[in-house]
Amino acid sequence: MRIFFLGTSAGVPTRDRNVSCVAVRRGGELLLFDVGEGAQRQLIKAGLGLKTKTKIFITHMHGDHLVGLLALLQTFSLAGREDPMLVFGPEKVAAFINSNLEMMGVRPTFPIQMHTLSDGFVQENGEYVIRALRTRHSTETYALSLEEKQRPGKFDPEKAKSLKIPVTLWRNLQKGERVTVGEREIDPRLVVSEPRKGRKIVISSDTYPIDAMVRFAEGADVLIHESTYGEDHLDKTEKNLHSSAGQAALIASRALVRLLVLTHFSTRYNDLSALVKEARRVFPRVVAARDFMVVTVAYP
Amino acid sequence: MRIFFLGTSAGVPTRDRNVSCVAVRRGGELLLFDVGEGAQRQLIKAGLGLKTKTKIFITHMHGDHLVGLLALLQTFSLAGREDPMLVFGPEKVAAFINSNLEMMGVRPTFPIQMHTLSDGFVQENGEYVIRALRTRHSTETYALSLEEKQRPGKFDPEKAKSLKIPVTLWRNLQKGERVTVGEREIDPRLVVSEPRKGRKIVISSDTYPIDAMVRFAEGADVLIHESTYGEDHLDKTEKNLHSSAGQAALIASRALVRLLVLTHFSTRYNDLSALVKEARRVFPRVVAARDFMVVTVAYP
Repeated sequence: MRIFFLGTSAGVPTRDRNVSCVAVRRGGELLLFDVGEGAQRQLIKAGLGLKTKTKIFITHMHGDHLVGLLALLQTFSLAGREDPMLVFGPEKVAAFINSNLEMMGVRPTFPIQMHTLSDGFVQENGEYVIRALRTRHSTETYALSLEEKQRPGKFDPEKAKSLKIPVTLWRNLQKGERVTVGEREIDPRLVVSEPRKGRKIVISSDTYPIDAMVRFAEGADVLIHESTYGEDHLDKTEKNLHSSAGQAALIASRALVRLLVLTHFSTRYNDLSALVKEARRVFPRVVAARDFMVVTVAYP
Repeated sequence: MRIFFLGTSAGVPTRDRNVSCVAVRRGGELLLFDVGEGAQRQLIKAGLGLKTKTKIFITHMHGDHLVGLLALLQTFSLAGREDPMLVFGPEKVAAFINSNLEMMGVRPTFPIQMHTLSDGFVQENGEYVIRALRTRHSTETYALSLEEKQRPGKFDPEKAKSLKIPVTLWRNLQKGERVTVGEREIDPRLVVSEPRKGRKIVISSDTYPIDAMVRFAEGADVLIHESTYGEDHLDKTEKNLHSSAGQAALIASRALVRLLVLTHFSTRYNDLSALVKEARRVFPRVVAARDFMVVTVAYP
């Protein structure tokens, strides 16, 4: 699982930073968390094709998280995509898509499946669960988590050989079934290790620091938390319902995450070293995102 | 007058080319002709502030010419702009702006004055006239021309001195008035040259080559004509209602323009040398636009 930071500026782009977009590549899928204006071109520059299975999550209706959707849908149509496109977001996203495609004269060549976000469970498949958490921001906004399911334990072929278990039965043991060899009944736990934990990543989106984020992000391998300001503008976090670097670090510390990535920086910060320093005083495992940074999430 | 090419790719951006946007800086004003997705960031990268008097012209409702409007209006609002913003475009642009600003929760801090484009006269002030020409494209689309008014002729102070005309009367002569010196009546043409031609630039927007463009672009200092294809895809010009490099050159040649700038290239052309060569066979004074190219338009 690799996380591509494609837009790390808050509100307005800069020369070096585009507006919000995080792309997650996982098992042949591309998951996009917010698509601010220009997300499409950032994807092209990052070498991420638009041809893979793609799901799009819109955390809220602010333009710098949303507008890139229009060009993406237009491009998918120009390319003649046929696979359904899943779009998750607040209820208004459907109207945003429908009214704009009509005004722009785009007839999608593929079905768009809209899923309205609400607090709690969002989606699951055999491999992972997506959950949402309503944050505290100036409009309906959701943090999102992707949590992989447990993987089966690791099979130990040497152990199986030493126990003289025929190869034809290995598969059953791997599935967790008991098997019988001669008169012996073999417990799968003899040759298969404990189920292994999956990976978990959490994207805070825009939010004032909230206690609920601690439980939501608990034990995450990567917490991507907004850090619009530093302690030099703490007053603004409350006024504009955003977080400071130190506030994000406190969440990370309480949630016992493996890595905190700060992002969504106000354009007033050209140099982020003060923000990183501020966070590091509270939580040591922190980096500031920059556009085109890639984080590979290893198994814990 | 300087022309900034901020987006030269057709339909979809590439690593090197963003979608359509031409910015014209003239006498303290910034005129934007189309604002495809990401236009705002291109303006920032080109060092063009958003604080000057700005007029925006949308030639048609295709996303790659239009979508950048949303982020621009959001940013102007974040910056607390108060000056009115003039937006020219097809009738639907008003609905596009209003519905999106409402969905995105943006309350503009400035009045947006919408002007619907139609064939012919668009706007004039003391210095220039803007005209529109309906092109031949898959949706209602307009080419636009900016034509400066004649400037008064040049006053020749040496000649005026030699004719012993008192300095107090020079201003009247400059304005084209006859003056009396002693018993002599002085014709202003004796000391003021012929009125000087203003500059003219024309932007074709998206179009199949049309005869009407020849008259519309007649004598232009710069004709910016779309050149989506080369002669290798002539069939596509008719099918998709676009032009080839050679077709654009033929228009330029018939309209006797000073310079032809090709733009709006299909993403299939990484190397544009074949397109320039094709155009040059028909019309010699031609360049291919690239992003961040600047053309300074001198007086003829």
